[in-house]
Amino acid sequence: MPKDTVVKLAIATCTAPVNIAVVKYWGKRNEDLILPINSSLSVTLDQDQLKTTTTVASCRSFQEDRIWLNGKEEDINHPRLQSCLREIRRLARKRRSDGDSSVDVGCLSHKVHICSVNNFPTAAGLASSAAGFACLVYTLARVYGVEGELSGIARQGSGSACRSMYGGFVQWIMGEAEDGRDSVAQQVEPESHWPDLRVLVLVASAERKPVGSTSGMQTSVETSSLLKHRAESVVPGRMKQMIEAVRKRDFAAFADLTMRDSNQFHATCLDTYPPIFYLNTVSRQVIALVHQYNRHYGEARVAYTFDAGPNAVIYTLQQHVAEFLSVVRHFFPPDNNGKKFVTGLQVEHLGISEELKSAICLEPTPKGISYIISTKAGPGPRVLDDPSQHLLAADGLPKTSGPPPLGV
Amino acid sequence: MPKDTVVKLAIATCTAPVNIAVVKYWGKRNEDLILPINSSLSVTLDQDQLKTTTTVASCRSFQEDRIWLNGKEEDINHPRLQSCLREIRRLARKRRSDGDSSVDVGCLSHKVHICSVNNFPTAAGLASSAAGFACLVYTLARVYGVEGELSGIARQGSGSACRSMYGGFVQWIMGEAEDGRDSVAQQVEPESHWPDLRVLVLVASAERKPVGSTSGMQTSVETSSLLKHRAESVVPGRMKQMIEAVRKRDFAAFADLTMRDSNQFHATCLDTYPPIFYLNTVSRQVIALVHQYNRHYGEARVAYTFDAGPNAVIYTLQQHVAEFLSVVRHFFPPDNNGKKFVTGLQVEHLGISEELKSAICLEPTPKGISYIISTKAGPGPRVLDDPSQHLLAADGLPKTSGPPPLGV
Repeated sequence: MPKDTVVKLAIATCTAPVNIAVVKYWGKRNEDLILPINSSLSVTLDQDQLKTTTTVASCRSFQEDRIWLNGKEEDINHPRLQSCLREIRRLARKRRSDGDSSVDVGCLSHKVHICSVNNFPTAAGLASSAAGFACLVYTLARVYGVEGELSGIARQGSGSACRSMYGGFVQWIMGEAEDGRDSVAQQVEPESHWPDLRVLVLVASAERKPVGSTSGMQTSVETSSLLKHRAESVVPGRMKQMIEAVRKRDFAAFADLTMRDSNQFHATCLDTYPPIFYLNTVSRQVIALVHQYNRHYGEARVAYTFDAGPNAVIYTLQQHVAEFLSVVRHFFPPDNNGKKFVTGLQVEHLGISEELKSAICLEPTPKGISYIISTKAGPGPRVLDDPSQHLLAADGLPKTSGPPPLGV
Repeated sequence: MPKDTVVKLAIATCTAPVNIAVVKYWGKRNEDLILPINSSLSVTLDQDQLKTTTTVASCRSFQEDRIWLNGKEEDINHPRLQSCLREIRRLARKRRSDGDSSVDVGCLSHKVHICSVNNFPTAAGLASSAAGFACLVYTLARVYGVEGELSGIARQGSGSACRSMYGGFVQWIMGEAEDGRDSVAQQVEPESHWPDLRVLVLVASAERKPVGSTSGMQTSVETSSLLKHRAESVVPGRMKQMIEAVRKRDFAAFADLTMRDSNQFHATCLDTYPPIFYLNTVSRQVIALVHQYNRHYGEARVAYTFDAGPNAVIYTLQQHVAEFLSVVRHFFPPDNNGKKFVTGLQVEHLGISEELKSAICLEPTPKGISYIISTKAGPGPRVLDDPSQHLLAADGLPKTSGPPPLGV
């Protein structure tokens, strides 16, 4: 743990990734502990494109716990933030009393300052809370000198945050215990397992703010009998199939399960009362485009998945990325204002055949997609050792500028 | 049966109603016999606004069976048309051999000419096949002198047609027999049971032709596990609750079940693979409007239901029609080209309060709704005794003009 004994400031800075589920989490059996009604599985995205960076500093002179998110001080008393702080401190005390000498006891009695920034705009509609809480818990653990399983604490910040504690392909095992001790994330395969898998985030021009996922899933649990059936009878089999598809790098099976599961999640939203709609017209057009593209080639080359918002996340293989992006660009002609349409991993421009164009029966929708983030699977949280990357200065207050956000 | 012995023409003209399900039929367990995977319940709409009129003539001189639909001769060899012709003739022969003297034996060996028109445009997206096949079977039965239970034959033309064989509130009992003999419609209550119930058909300006219901439900049965669960575990209880709500004229319960069931039907369409979308942007706006309107009053005053298309059918009570229509007119300002926005039962114009306007958080969508048909529950098929209303002339060919369509 980097520690400056002169200013008595314990400080650490870490980064954590976004993850996109292919077997969806929707619905809690325990709201306080954030215990899900079904297991889920996600792909951790590369932090080169999407990440949260968090600095935690602890110092005897700090008067109170404080937090700054994306440049603005926020209320530290947010219950889920408090859960994470309380649980990580409890764990540190426990480890210490179990004889772990790496735990920093002094630190534990001090207040913390937390500063966190995303390198992507919140407006992108990517579940930033997963990366954010994963990063918070990972960085707090670093400051307190706690190691080992931390996903159960991240889970109490935001359910899906537990999956951002690992890289590659990660399952969140729902668990059975009432206290949630067995509801943790586990790596299925590392990111190196499937090197040619690619991810495209199609950021739709949002119409309006949809229902938040916390209240949305609560209403779904209360009102949708289809959700109950999905959790009990569909997901267990689908988890097994998905893990097998990942292990075998069977893209056709992976794509098929991913699309079916996204659709079923949105079906349970529609079965919620009053119904919840996250897919908009552009989302439905992307769904149609993907099915028609795959049908044209007689195989699943591309898969879509949608979380609690209209943005499509596309999974495909390296060899199909350039052509598929050209197809997307053709049917969703970008605003020609000089802004880059595709950010992230470079993709060459390809022409597409008239045959392919006519195989896709869709009216072009100009500006339907705002921009695209091109990325791949990536590793779990990381420690930044270079002190210049700390977001908090020696006085424990945020430095004036963080890393520039991507795609704004 | 009207019979002109001079030209040896047996002829009958009948009308049959449209019905709108409040517990939806989606999915067959037998494609040929049209046996459903769950029971369903509908309200028969008043023929003053929506009806099919069909004339059947039978004559020794006819060379072949022929059919004209909405002014155009169609292929008589359509398999479901043939099913109805075959089954009604089989029934007539059976009744005759059982000693029923009212059956016209001569007629049975003659060819038939069929002429059918709807008084509403096909573009309205109302399931015209239900009214059409109900009217066909009812009129054929009249020509052949067959009486009694005929819904099992109408069912073989189009599943939901069996429910158009009765007025008021009608259930289609799914049945258990393999040959479908117990899969028939039954009146739950006549139309007179709930005189203040009103129906508004909000005809959306369709974007494009959606997936047909026949192929759509087949794909759903093959791919949606949620549909299977719905049919087996949700609908049986919902049928009981709906019948009770109708019997008690409990609008709040009726509205709640109707909306939940419509949503669940569309959820199973989304769980279909590839997914099927029938609701468009206007449909989703109508759903939001209805929920916000009901929330404003703290009670369910209005309910929506959607079939395999974007048109909303609204159920409400007489005392709420005028205000709700004014709300619809405010949020979906009609094209001011002189065409009547509301056809059918007269509704007075009401102003709406600013408070109500602001309670509904929706951007007005000009021309989102093309027009509205205002109607109520009505009786089952009827015989037209006035020979001037026959659609076929004495020579067995269509007269030049039928009744004018509504709302075009």
